[in-house]
Amino acid sequence: MIERPLILVSNDDGYRAKGINCLARVLMEFGDVVVVAPHTGRSGKGCAITSEVPLKVELVASEPGLQIYSCTGTPCDCVKVACHSILDRRPSLVVGGINHGDNSAVNAHYSGTMGIVLEGCMKGIPSVAFSLCSHDADADFAPTYDVIRRVVAAVLERGLPTGSCLNVNFPDSQSYAGVKVCRQAIGRWVNEWESHNHPRGGEWWWLTGEFVVEDNDHSADRVALDNNYVSITPTTIDMTDYRLLDDMKSWNL
Amino acid sequence: MIERPLILVSNDDGYRAKGINCLARVLMEFGDVVVVAPHTGRSGKGCAITSEVPLKVELVASEPGLQIYSCTGTPCDCVKVACHSILDRRPSLVVGGINHGDNSAVNAHYSGTMGIVLEGCMKGIPSVAFSLCSHDADADFAPTYDVIRRVVAAVLERGLPTGSCLNVNFPDSQSYAGVKVCRQAIGRWVNEWESHNHPRGGEWWWLTGEFVVEDNDHSADRVALDNNYVSITPTTIDMTDYRLLDDMKSWNL
Repeated sequence: MIERPLILVSNDDGYRAKGINCLARVLMEFGDVVVVAPHTGRSGKGCAITSEVPLKVELVASEPGLQIYSCTGTPCDCVKVACHSILDRRPSLVVGGINHGDNSAVNAHYSGTMGIVLEGCMKGIPSVAFSLCSHDADADFAPTYDVIRRVVAAVLERGLPTGSCLNVNFPDSQSYAGVKVCRQAIGRWVNEWESHNHPRGGEWWWLTGEFVVEDNDHSADRVALDNNYVSITPTTIDMTDYRLLDDMKSWNL
Repeated sequence: MIERPLILVSNDDGYRAKGINCLARVLMEFGDVVVVAPHTGRSGKGCAITSEVPLKVELVASEPGLQIYSCTGTPCDCVKVACHSILDRRPSLVVGGINHGDNSAVNAHYSGTMGIVLEGCMKGIPSVAFSLCSHDADADFAPTYDVIRRVVAAVLERGLPTGSCLNVNFPDSQSYAGVKVCRQAIGRWVNEWESHNHPRGGEWWWLTGEFVVEDNDHSADRVALDNNYVSITPTTIDMTDYRLLDDMKSWNL
């Protein structure tokens, strides 16, 4: 008997979020699904890991082809603890999402959803992140399913190069202009903080801000999204800047 | 009168750590130094940002040419809040470290020290991380000063390309074989968790593990360090995998 692929799923919105539950149902068409996701929202945690406190992992639901665990750690921790202590075999695929909110451009660095797939990738497992450009807790994820099916089928069939993963972002739309393979867009955050007085004295700072896209090329993920394309950004865990590496040979340090 | 360069310094070991205080003293030779660092250790926080609670920022020490602030956020938050709310002008340089522990290879993704310089880089500011291969709270940082001076002088003079920053790691050694410009080494974590019984019942998981270097090329940062070289890894915030981007054009998604 040929074993069905094992698919590990996580997110940064917590195991109860609509996005991850929609995703798990779609992925059950392809294999056995194990969800190991934060017990609560852990957005913006990037590749953070937890070393200062121990973690608790709990099985919260189980049915044929689907198990759901909650974990008190970060998204990265969830992948680490799943691979080490929960899964009975090596997964064929690690999938993050569907995130409530986009993870295009440099925001991939802050994204817990990308933390999941960078971690899967560091473990040598083909890994894909899916995110929707809507923070609505009750967002409509149904329009994303067809592209998710095509991407998952392609990755299960072809694999991905070692050290590479995919960052897929969907416009918040009922139908798409198409699917575009993109580079990470250039942009930056401005007006990032709001100051408030604490009721018992002192100034406190809340993180907020606006993201300014500094790119207008349709091959940039954030620009493609703004033009109603699904963007797929092939992403590498190797952050070496090879051009600068060559240039620095003449620095004589 | 020509203004001295303004240098923003942060770390992930907390503002009281020996490494950041040694670094601030060296950097005062080059400009006015403002330290904005976590109030306590925030190792392994990568590019995590804090959106779920507000942050408190406090001036804890001040002397001519040096101000030290503590911040209840992550390393990334420290850079963000410094640039928005503390510094009176745009810094010429963002510096992270000196970290107690190395940040070579894929560990750049987990590193709060690298979170600082990736954030500085995202803001378009030349940014450099310094880390020492020793977790000793009282480690001897003096052997690093000469190379730190040379790197800082070079970056202040030449700048860095937009979107690029430097990840400098030092062997724990009194004298070095040399300085090598490197790529990020390949390696992975194994045996990552220890299970313990909680005193009041239930199993808890502590993150631990061993890093296995899967590289033997002297141009890889972790390998260079193991051979007593100081490694400088030019690092880009653009994680796009351009080779896979080209390959995927034939995927017909």
